[in-house]
Amino acid sequence: MRLRNVKNKQEIMDASSYLITDPKKYYGAWNELFRNNNPIHIEIGAGKGNFIINKALQNPNVNFIGIEKFDSILARCLQKIPDGLQNLKIVRMNALEIEEVFNHEVDTIYLNFSDPWPKKRWYKRRLTSDVFLEKYDKVFKSDNHIIQKTDNRDLFEYSVISFSNYGYTIKDFSLDLHNSSIEGNIMTEYEERFSKKGNSIYYIEVTKEKNK
Amino acid sequence: MRLRNVKNKQEIMDASSYLITDPKKYYGAWNELFRNNNPIHIEIGAGKGNFIINKALQNPNVNFIGIEKFDSILARCLQKIPDGLQNLKIVRMNALEIEEVFNHEVDTIYLNFSDPWPKKRWYKRRLTSDVFLEKYDKVFKSDNHIIQKTDNRDLFEYSVISFSNYGYTIKDFSLDLHNSSIEGNIMTEYEERFSKKGNSIYYIEVTKEKNK
Repeated sequence: MRLRNVKNKQEIMDASSYLITDPKKYYGAWNELFRNNNPIHIEIGAGKGNFIINKALQNPNVNFIGIEKFDSILARCLQKIPDGLQNLKIVRMNALEIEEVFNHEVDTIYLNFSDPWPKKRWYKRRLTSDVFLEKYDKVFKSDNHIIQKTDNRDLFEYSVISFSNYGYTIKDFSLDLHNSSIEGNIMTEYEERFSKKGNSIYYIEVTKEKNK
Repeated sequence: MRLRNVKNKQEIMDASSYLITDPKKYYGAWNELFRNNNPIHIEIGAGKGNFIINKALQNPNVNFIGIEKFDSILARCLQKIPDGLQNLKIVRMNALEIEEVFNHEVDTIYLNFSDPWPKKRWYKRRLTSDVFLEKYDKVFKSDNHIIQKTDNRDLFEYSVISFSNYGYTIKDFSLDLHNSSIEGNIMTEYEERFSKKGNSIYYIEVTKEKNK
């Protein structure tokens, strides 16, 4: 994600009813915030929001939470959200703190075009490293369910091995998402740009039974 | 594998000391045939033999068995084997009968550029379908260990999902074997031709604990 500074970002953030900057306050109480018991799906690294906003529009009976740490990107995302969307929140936080924010409340995690952290000494920072998979165990309500897409081959290969060795089962898998039988894909901003060049998107959906 | 008829195939087959045409005779007794207790690695669909012959030459302390069902291809393979190789046999058989040939005797199965059986109604014929994975359980000595490579995207995607759902764990994985950190690759005849065109080879190594 390119970090272009948004000058009036603080103004945009202050004005938005979608933004949450103190997410630990809702630990164990996210369904109360949404005022329903619908499932909760989160996107870690929501970027400019195209994916999570459209997911929320298309699935009114699911609560969506987009997590993003960079203010300038957050601001762009907040600007895009139409008024009156009841099932969407954008949370400013670092994914490392995820287990302090969700207490066995999440049904699905989306990882879209996450930072590949290409150097070996950075692998533990990848959102599919053991460090994060251990955190996710504390976040999921019942069975774990993660859907990842990326154009980065190294990250994808790493994720496949990491998921499998952590006990996840691969439910769906494609080396070319846009030319696959997988339906209902919503593109991120990055994905739109990237796939126009004719490059393939890698896709993996994994599950793990609770307490396994 | 292109099937070009080899006119003198019967002659070649009759003359070879490497060929076994009645493999069920050795059920439970393959180590006796090799006269040692070394591990047994088999390749299902050995084709013209480049892979399995070189594996045997490079690993004298492993017994290799190449399985092939087509006589014309078998004959080409047999012609390539140097004299005096003690740790290699070529078996004429249909892979469907594999559980009648090996009785918990095999350590590793190689699946190289297997027939992709592209139509959905043929999927059960794929060497990584449940039909075959069930058979392999009866073939492996202790932990299951399968290494597959292919250039066929559909077959590869299918295999990844099939292995994972059958309980296998992915130990190694590459979307571009020839540009990966995986060492010691021996190319098949097909792989040499195919990769010269600049196409990627997909690779997966999986294991499953005994009785799991």
